[in-house]
Amino acid sequence: MKLDRKLKICIVGLGLMGGSYAQALSDEGYEVGAVARRRETLDFALEKGWIAHGETEVTQEYMSRFDIVVFALYPHIFVEWIEKYQRCLKAGAVITDVTGVKGCIVYKIQEMLRPDVEFIAAHPLAGSEKSGIEYATKEIFRQANYIVTPTEKNTREAVEICKSLGETLGFKTVTTLTPEEHDEMIGFLSQLTHCIAVSLMTCRNTDGFEKYTGDSFRDLTRIANINDVMWSELFLLNKEELLKQMELFENAFANLRKAIEDENTDEMRSLMKLSTEHRKRFDKEGK
Amino acid sequence: MKLDRKLKICIVGLGLMGGSYAQALSDEGYEVGAVARRRETLDFALEKGWIAHGETEVTQEYMSRFDIVVFALYPHIFVEWIEKYQRCLKAGAVITDVTGVKGCIVYKIQEMLRPDVEFIAAHPLAGSEKSGIEYATKEIFRQANYIVTPTEKNTREAVEICKSLGETLGFKTVTTLTPEEHDEMIGFLSQLTHCIAVSLMTCRNTDGFEKYTGDSFRDLTRIANINDVMWSELFLLNKEELLKQMELFENAFANLRKAIEDENTDEMRSLMKLSTEHRKRFDKEGK
Repeated sequence: MKLDRKLKICIVGLGLMGGSYAQALSDEGYEVGAVARRRETLDFALEKGWIAHGETEVTQEYMSRFDIVVFALYPHIFVEWIEKYQRCLKAGAVITDVTGVKGCIVYKIQEMLRPDVEFIAAHPLAGSEKSGIEYATKEIFRQANYIVTPTEKNTREAVEICKSLGETLGFKTVTTLTPEEHDEMIGFLSQLTHCIAVSLMTCRNTDGFEKYTGDSFRDLTRIANINDVMWSELFLLNKEELLKQMELFENAFANLRKAIEDENTDEMRSLMKLSTEHRKRFDKEGK
Repeated sequence: MKLDRKLKICIVGLGLMGGSYAQALSDEGYEVGAVARRRETLDFALEKGWIAHGETEVTQEYMSRFDIVVFALYPHIFVEWIEKYQRCLKAGAVITDVTGVKGCIVYKIQEMLRPDVEFIAAHPLAGSEKSGIEYATKEIFRQANYIVTPTEKNTREAVEICKSLGETLGFKTVTTLTPEEHDEMIGFLSQLTHCIAVSLMTCRNTDGFEKYTGDSFRDLTRIANINDVMWSELFLLNKEELLKQMELFENAFANLRKAIEDENTDEMRSLMKLSTEHRKRFDKEGK
């Protein structure tokens, strides 16, 4: 099986991410179906032309149409779905996901899944502070990275289908990592940064401060506008790795604080020079 | 004395900030002169039409032309300049600055200054990761705040001139704070955020991570590209206040870490909800 327009794709969960997948794939000429909890969500997607059809109930009749199923659900709901409905999937189907943590999900799903269906995990590093299909747009993929996280259980064929899916969706880069490498990376680049933003935004009274702020505070707290249900779940699913990354940051922060306390200008300047040098690699927009 | 185009303005120090002041004021029809260390800097500004004339040496003959002098220098160089050259200033002149800390500078300068010259301090909350006149542009003022920090020694007239200067430069908002209020605000909104960015950028090896990052990490570390000479000086000049703000942040971060360790979802979610609510006030671009 290779990814081509003859394959029918189902998106389970039409939120910001599922809706954006549906739009991108329909625009690329795929027949896209969907399962969503609410009829209004399906109507919205139908009206936009992002799906060809959709259901609010999971049935074998509907699911057996699809060669590829993308789960765009909260992690625990994804696991529940597989437990309850995997019998409805078409034999030979390839399923994938959008979950922001991998180690705790990938092996679990692969373990419980029917042998005639293959799960190849992926993490689209795109999003928005907003949630819901009304904010969905395939534009969020344009400058973003898509990470496929295969395990030993995956076939080369499924990995290739999943990578092609990332390219078809319009991601700027498509790469692969092990689930463990992924979780370390995400613990640092994404979860730690959200912890910092939340802490900064809640550490003191800031009434009236908006009149005085420059861009730096606004940049550091953009992601302090956070979906509490999703992120508290993601934090716990990557707890050990996240705590490690938090500790690394705490140590560095304490080190800088000591340099300031000691009025150790040499140490401050050397940290700042290192910081400037490291940041250069992240400089180019869209890299 | 009120701010009008008959007044002649001198910018001492033509870096990113001084150059941007010169451009904005010349474009508004003022006769702007400058003192800079290097002839090339003056030539650059002359060629751009940002200054009418300039000198590399400070002389009484030159300085006595100016009704208003803006010091766009590193803090300690500003103090040294006043010690060495204040005799050259015109009687009745109003002087102002762009220094990012106030308590430790304002009273000191006012104390040492000739009685026939008035110092009214201001902080333009604008800038760039880049430094030097080649990056100067009055555009940096457009969405930015300008804070005047008068003391009991200041006349209402000088405060008004300084506020008018902020408006003439094109700042979005012009406000006043006491030097102490200013330093608390800046310790939190600007210095703490730079400490966080530097710590995040230096806390671990990040080789190759640029391939996987989304916007959040890039946003949080934009200011990790930092002028080490200037910021290490500013940190120490506001040491006590900055350390207080760092402690508030450390406590909040440790609190969130404990919630994750304890798998206390309620606490995590309530912090995230508070964070989201607080962030709303900082939402609108350019507010």
